[in-house]
Amino acid sequence: MERIRKITANISEIDPAIIKKTQERLDNLTKPLGSLGRLEELAIKICAITGKENPSLRNKVIFTLASDHGVTEEGVSAYPKEVTSQMVYNFLSGGAGINVLADHIGAKVVVVDIGVATDLKPDPRLVIKKINYGTKNMAKGPAMSRDEAIKAICAGIEIFEDEFKVGIDIVGTGEMGIGNTTSSSAITAVFTKKLISDITGKGAGLDDKGLEKKIRVIEKSLSVNRPNPSDAIDVLSKVGGFEIAGLAGIILAASARKVPVVIDGFISGAAALIAFSIEPRVKDYMIAAHCSVETGHRVILEYIGLKPLFDLGLRLGEGTGGALGIGLADAAIKILTQMATFNSANVSEKNK
Amino acid sequence: MERIRKITANISEIDPAIIKKTQERLDNLTKPLGSLGRLEELAIKICAITGKENPSLRNKVIFTLASDHGVTEEGVSAYPKEVTSQMVYNFLSGGAGINVLADHIGAKVVVVDIGVATDLKPDPRLVIKKINYGTKNMAKGPAMSRDEAIKAICAGIEIFEDEFKVGIDIVGTGEMGIGNTTSSSAITAVFTKKLISDITGKGAGLDDKGLEKKIRVIEKSLSVNRPNPSDAIDVLSKVGGFEIAGLAGIILAASARKVPVVIDGFISGAAALIAFSIEPRVKDYMIAAHCSVETGHRVILEYIGLKPLFDLGLRLGEGTGGALGIGLADAAIKILTQMATFNSANVSEKNK
Repeated sequence: MERIRKITANISEIDPAIIKKTQERLDNLTKPLGSLGRLEELAIKICAITGKENPSLRNKVIFTLASDHGVTEEGVSAYPKEVTSQMVYNFLSGGAGINVLADHIGAKVVVVDIGVATDLKPDPRLVIKKINYGTKNMAKGPAMSRDEAIKAICAGIEIFEDEFKVGIDIVGTGEMGIGNTTSSSAITAVFTKKLISDITGKGAGLDDKGLEKKIRVIEKSLSVNRPNPSDAIDVLSKVGGFEIAGLAGIILAASARKVPVVIDGFISGAAALIAFSIEPRVKDYMIAAHCSVETGHRVILEYIGLKPLFDLGLRLGEGTGGALGIGLADAAIKILTQMATFNSANVSEKNK
Repeated sequence: MERIRKITANISEIDPAIIKKTQERLDNLTKPLGSLGRLEELAIKICAITGKENPSLRNKVIFTLASDHGVTEEGVSAYPKEVTSQMVYNFLSGGAGINVLADHIGAKVVVVDIGVATDLKPDPRLVIKKINYGTKNMAKGPAMSRDEAIKAICAGIEIFEDEFKVGIDIVGTGEMGIGNTTSSSAITAVFTKKLISDITGKGAGLDDKGLEKKIRVIEKSLSVNRPNPSDAIDVLSKVGGFEIAGLAGIILAASARKVPVVIDGFISGAAALIAFSIEPRVKDYMIAAHCSVETGHRVILEYIGLKPLFDLGLRLGEGTGGALGIGLADAAIKILTQMATFNSANVSEKNK
């Protein structure tokens, strides 16, 4: 907990001066005032986060954390549990959605085993930070111990710090874990106090009957565990997942290092809720890429106060939506740093 | 008119077999069914347009057509008329928004003078297809002759065909012309029959008083000219612009050549309306990138039946939103062609 407290102490407030300065600079570029809309907002936010007038977004890193969930034994997912480890191998061989979209935007994917239920074949590209062999079934008791929850957050901090030494200018959050929308809905219910049925979706592809069952399992998990919404570690340990805890650690660490964090979908949103509950200032360091098909995601973004950049009906996770968001961030910074000014291009300004 | 008829005769219906085949292929990739939402739709549409199972989107071209509008003498724009030619020089020297975003997605920008009010300095990168030195003031009579409208559409066809010889896999529409939202609102009113006040926006930055004046000028232009909504050439000649006519020609030519056309904002939308009125099949070849701040844009897209990919509050034009749309199209085709299948990656499929 000491490590987490140390990190959060380093998350500072945004300097409003750089926001004003960047806005003025955007207003001098050869385009009608404000005509690039949310790209302009994004450029301003990235300058504010980094504290730099001309931030570089060269080193783009997407962290895809994989973990298993004991609650899958309740039959809450459309896919078998083995898919978690199978997909890790797919990430490592470059065949998954996140590999394709990360490559498209020029990002590196860091694949992490933070709690897969089996021992994975050694691979130099696989980061191993296994907290345990999956969580326990939250419908029967806590998903993990309090100590494990803290360890998993700290693992996220370490993963970030290790890559930070190599170079990170912008981060995307990603995950893989059969069962993890169930955990994310439970976390969302605890913090936002919304009806479970309003924030629970079909995950990777349940039918209506499967969705009803999933809702009942979440209700049971919350009544068995009674997580305390004013204690993020308690929530994590009772209904969380190791990948969600790890991503919360990454969000905290990135914020402390003034690195923009692009949040992917619903599960990343649950991690954002955890990080936000530990330190509300992380809000200013997060960029919401998109709005997922999972109904709870919109609720999370509204709760934190983040407006997604786009809605393409995505519900894959892995960091895929975040990758597209990083691409837009890149475009936004290029607009700020590469466009001509009215003066330099000899273009007349608005009629007075 | 013969040339236009010849082109439209070559716009064929989409083959439903390739839609089905591409859907099946997407369903075999290592992701939950349909979980990449609109990216999957986009991949299917591009396969359907091109008729190819593995379309290449290597050669990306954005056509930015510049032209002046006589109606600016009514005071309908926040910027002086000279900005049209000044911005052409900015496009040529690479300092405009479209240059930055085209470069971001790896596209070539083809800059065309199709009706700028002055003679521009010669530049090997500038395509000159000048129909006239700007349109006439549509508030006092037709903006151009019927012959000029046809010539401008044919100029668009030629511009496309010239680039097609070099190589085009996907096209973006773009424009620059002080006063051209006024013309676009008039065109939108004629085809969609909506209230002028509902489809007229502040363009590059009018105040409320300026907007009211603009609406009155459009009302006057329509009552002076009485364009015939069942004759696209009549609409163009009375309240159109040369860049709008040229873009309509590009849309027709691209459709005939089975090249996907990514539509940018409101003015490109007005060109889409003209092309759609000449040959409704163009709908299947168009991809709506985004929804502009200009209120008429959404009305156009609904009228044609196109759903925009994103809404980033853009209202710059030039092809900027289209450029971002081409970036997404690229991502979609990479998903289709680069992701592993369940079989190749040894990933288990959904529980039965």
